[in-house]
Amino acid sequence: MSEDTCASDCNRNASNVAFIGVGQMGARMVKNLISKGEKVKVFDSVPQAASSVQGVTICNSPEEAAKDAAFVFTMLPNGHIVKDTLLGEKGIMKGIKKNALFIDSSTIEPQQSQELGKIAKENGFRFLDAPVSGGVTGAEAGTLTFMVGGEDGDAEEVKPILLKMGKNVFKCGGTGTGQIAKLCNNLILAITMIGTCESLNMGVKLGMDPKLLTNIINVSTGRSWSSDTYNPVPGVMPNVPSSNHYKGGFGVPLIAKDLALAESAALSVGAPLPLGAISHQLYRTLIANGFSDKDFAVVYEFLKGQK
Amino acid sequence: MSEDTCASDCNRNASNVAFIGVGQMGARMVKNLISKGEKVKVFDSVPQAASSVQGVTICNSPEEAAKDAAFVFTMLPNGHIVKDTLLGEKGIMKGIKKNALFIDSSTIEPQQSQELGKIAKENGFRFLDAPVSGGVTGAEAGTLTFMVGGEDGDAEEVKPILLKMGKNVFKCGGTGTGQIAKLCNNLILAITMIGTCESLNMGVKLGMDPKLLTNIINVSTGRSWSSDTYNPVPGVMPNVPSSNHYKGGFGVPLIAKDLALAESAALSVGAPLPLGAISHQLYRTLIANGFSDKDFAVVYEFLKGQK
Amino acid sequence: MSEDTCASDCNRNASNVAFIGVGQMGARMVKNLISKGEKVKVFDSVPQAASSVQGVTICNSPEEAAKDAAFVFTMLPNGHIVKDTLLGEKGIMKGIKKNALFIDSSTIEPQQSQELGKIAKENGFRFLDAPVSGGVTGAEAGTLTFMVGGEDGDAEEVKPILLKMGKNVFKCGGTGTGQIAKLCNNLILAITMIGTCESLNMGVKLGMDPKLLTNIINVSTGRSWSSDTYNPVPGVMPNVPSSNHYKGGFGVPLIAKDLALAESAALSVGAPLPLGAISHQLYRTLIANGFSDKDFAVVYEFLKGQK
Amino acid sequence: MSEDTCASDCNRNASNVAFIGVGQMGARMVKNLISKGEKVKVFDSVPQAASSVQGVTICNSPEEAAKDAAFVFTMLPNGHIVKDTLLGEKGIMKGIKKNALFIDSSTIEPQQSQELGKIAKENGFRFLDAPVSGGVTGAEAGTLTFMVGGEDGDAEEVKPILLKMGKNVFKCGGTGTGQIAKLCNNLILAITMIGTCESLNMGVKLGMDPKLLTNIINVSTGRSWSSDTYNPVPGVMPNVPSSNHYKGGFGVPLIAKDLALAESAALSVGAPLPLGAISHQLYRTLIANGFSDKDFAVVYEFLKGQK
Repeated sequence: MSEDTCASDCNRNASNVAFIGVGQMGARMVKNLISKGEKVKVFDSVPQAASSVQGVTICNSPEEAAKDAAFVFTMLPNGHIVKDTLLGEKGIMKGIKKNALFIDSSTIEPQQSQELGKIAKENGFRFLDAPVSGGVTGAEAGTLTFMVGGEDGDAEEVKPILLKMGKNVFKCGGTGTGQIAKLCNNLILAITMIGTCESLNMGVKLGMDPKLLTNIINVSTGRSWSSDTYNPVPGVMPNVPSSNHYKGGFGVPLIAKDLALAESAALSVGAPLPLGAISHQLYRTLIANGFSDKDFAVVYEFLKGQK
Repeated sequence: MSEDTCASDCNRNASNVAFIGVGQMGARMVKNLISKGEKVKVFDSVPQAASSVQGVTICNSPEEAAKDAAFVFTMLPNGHIVKDTLLGEKGIMKGIKKNALFIDSSTIEPQQSQELGKIAKENGFRFLDAPVSGGVTGAEAGTLTFMVGGEDGDAEEVKPILLKMGKNVFKCGGTGTGQIAKLCNNLILAITMIGTCESLNMGVKLGMDPKLLTNIINVSTGRSWSSDTYNPVPGVMPNVPSSNHYKGGFGVPLIAKDLALAESAALSVGAPLPLGAISHQLYRTLIANGFSDKDFAVVYEFLKGQK
Repeated sequence: MSEDTCASDCNRNASNVAFIGVGQMGARMVKNLISKGEKVKVFDSVPQAASSVQGVTICNSPEEAAKDAAFVFTMLPNGHIVKDTLLGEKGIMKGIKKNALFIDSSTIEPQQSQELGKIAKENGFRFLDAPVSGGVTGAEAGTLTFMVGGEDGDAEEVKPILLKMGKNVFKCGGTGTGQIAKLCNNLILAITMIGTCESLNMGVKLGMDPKLLTNIINVSTGRSWSSDTYNPVPGVMPNVPSSNHYKGGFGVPLIAKDLALAESAALSVGAPLPLGAISHQLYRTLIANGFSDKDFAVVYEFLKGQK
Repeated sequence: MSEDTCASDCNRNASNVAFIGVGQMGARMVKNLISKGEKVKVFDSVPQAASSVQGVTICNSPEEAAKDAAFVFTMLPNGHIVKDTLLGEKGIMKGIKKNALFIDSSTIEPQQSQELGKIAKENGFRFLDAPVSGGVTGAEAGTLTFMVGGEDGDAEEVKPILLKMGKNVFKCGGTGTGQIAKLCNNLILAITMIGTCESLNMGVKLGMDPKLLTNIINVSTGRSWSSDTYNPVPGVMPNVPSSNHYKGGFGVPLIAKDLALAESAALSVGAPLPLGAISHQLYRTLIANGFSDKDFAVVYEFLKGQK
């Protein structure tokens, strides 16, 4: 981008992105926006969270952050909080401009996204659900995948900004389909990760070297992202949580939350999830047994045993 | 390979490969051996099976096939049959030469492979377990993966022959480790396939297009061989069983058998297999409900419902 | 009860019980109230349902039924319908007397019961959740168990009426605890029934006579209501659905509904339900495969196979 | 029994019962035999085990114990050990009299029992499989249930002796059916216990008193031996392991062993065990996480969480 287009572009961006919710994910996403030339106003209900992000304008409410913004992002723990942040006192709705684009990147129930979309329509602004895949690592590296539900034109309009935080943007269909795609993906992710943990634990206990076994699986029919990119056995791959005491990464309570959302969505259409349901309960059992602060690959350690 | 080494090499091979068990898999493997210049003596307990393979010498017993062979292959339904074929009347042991190499490509219990290895040692010949991954399609195309357990030198010796039937040969460790690697792989395969079926069924029922959803998953953390190479939804990929009424492919009873073997191996070392166990039972339930002649991806249809 | 107290008592009851929702359960419960001297006004959104009940006064709305009633019962499919019936146009709230007792015998989420209790308090009437166990058979025979949540005094007051429809009344604790007890019971019921089906199917396939096996289990540690009172194998007991082609009884969709409610309640407090979750999915799979109109013991037939 | 018949009866018994395997169960069973007038020769591979039993004749081998015995009992950990004890050097077969009755009360695979029966027939003695239900408590109290497979006449003959150790004797059918009945019972037991733990844990976390909840369940459709006789919640019942830190009782590894045997038997006839399989894996997970020395009701504590 040349200097002068930057100038005009920066003007366009000047103060027109709002980002509400700068926790583990949001803070890293905003960092990428800032480093790629966007100007961002942020709000977080935890003041320290907001103040830890460099180069942004900190606001005192969602209303204040949304004022004048062309793009208002939310990255929040659940659908109830998103709704409160939109509709509450000093909420987004109080400040948002006519025709502005409200993009929710939180993972929430598809039906909740549809409800938000309806509220947007009735109140003269636009809505996209745009949950992400890739976790904290992807947020840090700017390689997230966005799964977007809503109007095609709206998705096209925000795409350049999404690509500053990620490398893939999928338009999935109407409002809520971004959430559906996200839940479908994470359902497989949980199941495949647990399956990979079961298999590698069995192999190691039967005397196989986990690296060799992984190499074989990775060129065979058992290969998956869980074996070739995020291997759950300590020492098989560097720079993944399993090789760092399962610290960081995709926390057990978060995958449990996504599985609960998937079950709820599946129930609404009568789709059975036998492995999904038992995977969910396995993660609930891990939570009950003290694994809440670990990466979701810690199932390996749980199955291996503590001795 | 130059013309003259070929000549000597072909002489070497002349009548020195025996292949016992020419069913769905074995017949296709032998076809590749023949087309790539090997001369093969075959035996099958079903005479029609043997006679349907072109260009081979048909024998009347394992003993007869093994006589003079440098390499004796078995590709049989289970460990008891392999053992009978070795030790029975007119069995391999009656005919096998001193120091010949007995290669079992059947999928059997690792402990059974170890027992076969012990028998070989005590009787002056050599043994490798070399089960395959890739199924009927891989056998047909000559793209199987061999997972080999036993002595390194023995594995090296047979590797050129294996590469006429497959494209990957993995040396896994001592006797039985080929079987362990195979079971570990297929355990993940079954779990991941069912998980992929659950997810895609849920997504489709929620209104997503299965091709679009598959495309998203295939570049996201839910990707696996089951989604990107062997997709279980009819019409998403051509040339896979799901797009042909789940005909052919990897039959439900075969994956159920592998899961039973995996559970047995896991039990011997106290490794829990929560998803493996429920996957096994799901396939047993499919068998009880009339899906025995279908590819293992038919779980999609089972979960979707028959109406 | 002596003749003259009967007279005054009958006067008391004259026209002061309202019953909204006279489906499979409600109609039978009302029949018992009528036959034991109560006078009942009924409403059902399906007019034929209401008109099929003998000896009652049929009303045109919940409001009309509730007018003048001291006790207003609801027996409806889910919590949303109960709430609509209370709050909707011509709903109960429009007609209910100050201080009247609203008793919801539907099975709904405990949280929903608590919400109803709060609404009652704010609007000057009283609320009890009083779901039942015993099914259509118990409703017919007047042998239901009522699990009651709310104020002790209120529970005492309605107890004589409940005992006209059932034989056990349990006061469980504050508002919502009736539902909790019901869900806890039905969670065990589903799991135990499926376990009993698995066991008896295995035993029969291994050559045991199901009656003999049942007799043994019924005096051993495996005994339960599912084996000694509601045996799932055709022919073992007379007068249970399994001996009548699994017709009538406790339908598959109803137990599936209760398991969904149990999972939702468990999730709210982080209680893992591994067997509960897989039982739920098993019933969802039965629904997908055409067993929706069968008694929940039909799992036996499903596991046995259709051939 | 009158004095003089006692005299003759004692003579009959004098030195004609052999009991091999006096661990937790066997020692208590022998104690009851002794206290009820039998004279018993015992052998155990652990000398201290044998010497801790009062009033018996200690032997140096199964052969020695079996010599002159009319009834030879085994109570051993698994089928391989039973077979070794029968066929090994100084084994039972070396000492057993023509036509003596060999009664195996161990829990082993039904097929293994059938094999033992065949060996007996070929060698001129008689065989019954007679596994027990009731655990250490039942063994101590002499209230075991015996499930007997084999010839009716043989079962009748040993029945008076069995009734000195238990209160129920069920003749189940031909050889092996005792084991089948035992496995069928314990399969339900494991599933029902886990279901009861899930339910009570959920109820308690939702605020219910466990005693009240248990009382309700025990008169409702969720009742079972696991809730009314062996309740898993500490403090609900006295004198059960849950009220004594899950000490004693029916150990986790033992129920896991029975579930493995049940799965193996079910597999042989293609009977699906979805809840049985996941229950087995749950117990394997408990073993991996340090619960091996606890009663099988400890699932309650595992689901509740360690905090």
